[in-house]
Amino acid sequence: MNKLLSVGSIALDSIYTPFGFIERTMGGAVSYIGLSAAIFDVEQAVVGVVGYDYPKEYLDALADREIDISQVQVSTERTLFWSAKYHTDMNARQTLETQLNAFAGFRPVVPAHFTDARFVMLGNMEPSLQLEVLQQLTAEHKFVALDTMNYWIERTPQELHRIISMVDLLCINDEEARQLSGEYSLVRAAHQIMRLGVPYLIIKKGEHGALLFHKDEVFFAPALPLDEVFDPTGAGDAFAGGIMGYLAKSGDVSFENMKNALIYGATIASFCVESFGTKRLLALTKDEVLRRLLEFKSLTQFEIKIA
Amino acid sequence: MNKLLSVGSIALDSIYTPFGFIERTMGGAVSYIGLSAAIFDVEQAVVGVVGYDYPKEYLDALADREIDISQVQVSTERTLFWSAKYHTDMNARQTLETQLNAFAGFRPVVPAHFTDARFVMLGNMEPSLQLEVLQQLTAEHKFVALDTMNYWIERTPQELHRIISMVDLLCINDEEARQLSGEYSLVRAAHQIMRLGVPYLIIKKGEHGALLFHKDEVFFAPALPLDEVFDPTGAGDAFAGGIMGYLAKSGDVSFENMKNALIYGATIASFCVESFGTKRLLALTKDEVLRRLLEFKSLTQFEIKIA
Repeated sequence: MNKLLSVGSIALDSIYTPFGFIERTMGGAVSYIGLSAAIFDVEQAVVGVVGYDYPKEYLDALADREIDISQVQVSTERTLFWSAKYHTDMNARQTLETQLNAFAGFRPVVPAHFTDARFVMLGNMEPSLQLEVLQQLTAEHKFVALDTMNYWIERTPQELHRIISMVDLLCINDEEARQLSGEYSLVRAAHQIMRLGVPYLIIKKGEHGALLFHKDEVFFAPALPLDEVFDPTGAGDAFAGGIMGYLAKSGDVSFENMKNALIYGATIASFCVESFGTKRLLALTKDEVLRRLLEFKSLTQFEIKIA
Repeated sequence: MNKLLSVGSIALDSIYTPFGFIERTMGGAVSYIGLSAAIFDVEQAVVGVVGYDYPKEYLDALADREIDISQVQVSTERTLFWSAKYHTDMNARQTLETQLNAFAGFRPVVPAHFTDARFVMLGNMEPSLQLEVLQQLTAEHKFVALDTMNYWIERTPQELHRIISMVDLLCINDEEARQLSGEYSLVRAAHQIMRLGVPYLIIKKGEHGALLFHKDEVFFAPALPLDEVFDPTGAGDAFAGGIMGYLAKSGDVSFENMKNALIYGATIASFCVESFGTKRLLALTKDEVLRRLLEFKSLTQFEIKIA
């Protein structure tokens, strides 16, 4: 069985939407990634840090899915705290507050029996920390995915470019792709970014789906049109978690199989936004995922008939 | 051979983009619709009005494609004039000026040998004029598509609701769908609008593709990711023209075949935006369309593998 290692933030989130609010709920990239990848029954570890105030039940939710949390450090500081507000247009959000707390001093340590992981997800954090993780890995044929954000594109461009050149897949959103490349057209942005030395690039467009680029090929995975997007928090991480979980399960990182990975990722993300925070992922079953995959198929598949 | 009748605006457009500008070029909904549908070699008529100042070569471009222009009236006033400016984000445009001119007094007359047309496209105009066209039609099993805009949603909602209930397909953009339904979610908006009595609804999302709704079914056609969107003017009309041309050619208005129609429409629209105004459509060949259809197929098609 392939091992999947995810490293990144674990947080307490306060989220305000037009439909209500929730405070200090389970959050952070690796919470969403871990829960999403758990659908695929792969051998998983998550690495991160929490504060003394992090509820035990949130860590139990990971441990209950047989996710190794031995290197989720418990700090004497408070947990990373993030709060945000969404308006009617769920694609735009306003960050109200970020308190780094314990995450400010985070130094990732890969569990000894996961240094040989073949599948690795480096969540958004300082590029030098992402590099520290890479340096602990030993597998010869590994597949490493990277997320980042505007802050690192602006502040540490050289370190970021270096880590991008060392990974297999970069998974960022449209605004980040434009900022990183200086190109407005996403197609041009993609080719500019791949020239940094990363063979696969996913550009996430929120409710407008996601594009996968590899050499001269491109694939598009739509977002499932939903009656209501209740809370988009974590959708991008759920998408990445679904992709990496599926890839780890299948062990196949060809472009053709990556298409399937995107559809699985989009399917899991479509559940994620149905409730606050991680709530829907915590209740998600594999049967539900498989049923919704069929909706994706009917949403996008057609036979070309020559008129 | 099925007949396709299109009724609506013919205009002179001045368009300003970050890449340059063009003034008083061939424009208006039925110019784009006629040129796009002409790819399918169907029997076509367009009905509209031009002013004394409309260049003969623009009408010749339609007549050269064996499109009946016998009821394109020539007014003693000037031609409808529209100008707009695009910024880097091509999805947002600023209308600089609309001079209705000859179009203000337009009363559509369907050519005698097109009153039995089975396929009819009612371009955006006053709902009472769209009704006048409907009343001239005689075919028992016809398929009528309708476009409209925010102006009529606000000013003549009752007349608009009435004409919507009388047609088979409504083709509008996302903002119009939200305004018409009062719902932000496009899925909810779609079901609200179909309750007005229209069985098929297409919601256009510009560079983010288009959704087709019918009963409880939904299909998504992406927009082809392009290196550069040079000028989005007319893309929505080219999309509608491609759809109606394909439907008229195939004679099949099932939901399954409508999916193909959307892909053809999206393909032709993807050419439309590559140059100013109608320029690219004027040079477009069927071979180019068929080649690009294959790109659409590889962009969106996947095999579900159960992980």
